[in-house]
Amino acid sequence: MSRPKSVERLIENFARLPGVGPKTSERLTYFLLRSDPNVARSLVEAIETARASTRVCSQCFNLDESDPCTVCSDASRDRGLMLVVEDPRDVSAFEESGFRGIYHVLQGRVSSLEGIGLGDLTLSALHRRLAAEVPREIVLATNPDLEGEGTAQLLLEQLASYGASITRIARGIPAGATITQVSKSILADAIDGRRPLA
Amino acid sequence: MSRPKSVERLIENFARLPGVGPKTSERLTYFLLRSDPNVARSLVEAIETARASTRVCSQCFNLDESDPCTVCSDASRDRGLMLVVEDPRDVSAFEESGFRGIYHVLQGRVSSLEGIGLGDLTLSALHRRLAAEVPREIVLATNPDLEGEGTAQLLLEQLASYGASITRIARGIPAGATITQVSKSILADAIDGRRPLA
Repeated sequence: MSRPKSVERLIENFARLPGVGPKTSERLTYFLLRSDPNVARSLVEAIETARASTRVCSQCFNLDESDPCTVCSDASRDRGLMLVVEDPRDVSAFEESGFRGIYHVLQGRVSSLEGIGLGDLTLSALHRRLAAEVPREIVLATNPDLEGEGTAQLLLEQLASYGASITRIARGIPAGATITQVSKSILADAIDGRRPLA
Repeated sequence: MSRPKSVERLIENFARLPGVGPKTSERLTYFLLRSDPNVARSLVEAIETARASTRVCSQCFNLDESDPCTVCSDASRDRGLMLVVEDPRDVSAFEESGFRGIYHVLQGRVSSLEGIGLGDLTLSALHRRLAAEVPREIVLATNPDLEGEGTAQLLLEQLASYGASITRIARGIPAGATITQVSKSILADAIDGRRPLA
């Protein structure tokens, strides 16, 4: 290649990030090299600070700046209601929706394609948590896709014996959507999950 | 937002990069926070090294680790043949194609939409170069799109008086393409630019 070595190396580094192909990587590199030095400096500092200040919660495996995380150390939370999610990003999403229970982050989902099994998730830690304290309800909140549904099914078998009521988040038409514009599988979910109004 | 402050800050920093929306930015952030520490460290180092070692060539405005750049300081180059390009990335691309002349990097193209005029490009530096030495041929190699063609047209007017022969890179069917699969404007270019074989 005819590019300066340090430029080439930055392109290679960006290309290691998920979803960043060679063209995007080149674009990011030349942008950083030509923009105000503060843009690059601020990015570098943000990476270093975030790496240094975040840790995985030893109780729920959420990503936070404290361990136990903000949710686990919040005494006002309903410990009887546990939401099991795939990823710390799901915790952020449910927090914004106003959920006030506690979480367990699986750190992934079962995927035979990617060779990820139940043993690769934080399931044994979940068993230890449940051995100490069983919530009245465990809501399986893995994604409503093929792998998320499969993971929920496997979790149901694993958790059935604890005596907690085990539920699954609802599938249906997303709020704000138009019926004529959502897929037929969403409409089928909406009919399947219909609820009495009176 | 319910995310840790340092995570939020990294997401904001990634989102400042061109073409990186909020979802991509979140994905990059969580990837860097959970991957091997060396991935983040190597990226940080690559950004710092590339920022520290690259500079803009004071002659042709190419981006390189030396000033004058590798091309401008190469005595074996044909200084009679100057390729005028929009961007340092174009220099890399033409270098790989085997071009052995010299360059002038405009650092952009005229765009009325973005409010970029001729005065925002490195045109006065090009006039100074030409006052010192006029190449026998100046090839306008701005992109074959609306703004690149417009910029080439304006440059033609600006450079006509120097006595150099001014040419434009060829438009036509890209090597390796199939005639039935390229657009009609590419085919029209190919007919317009036809050349005698004997």
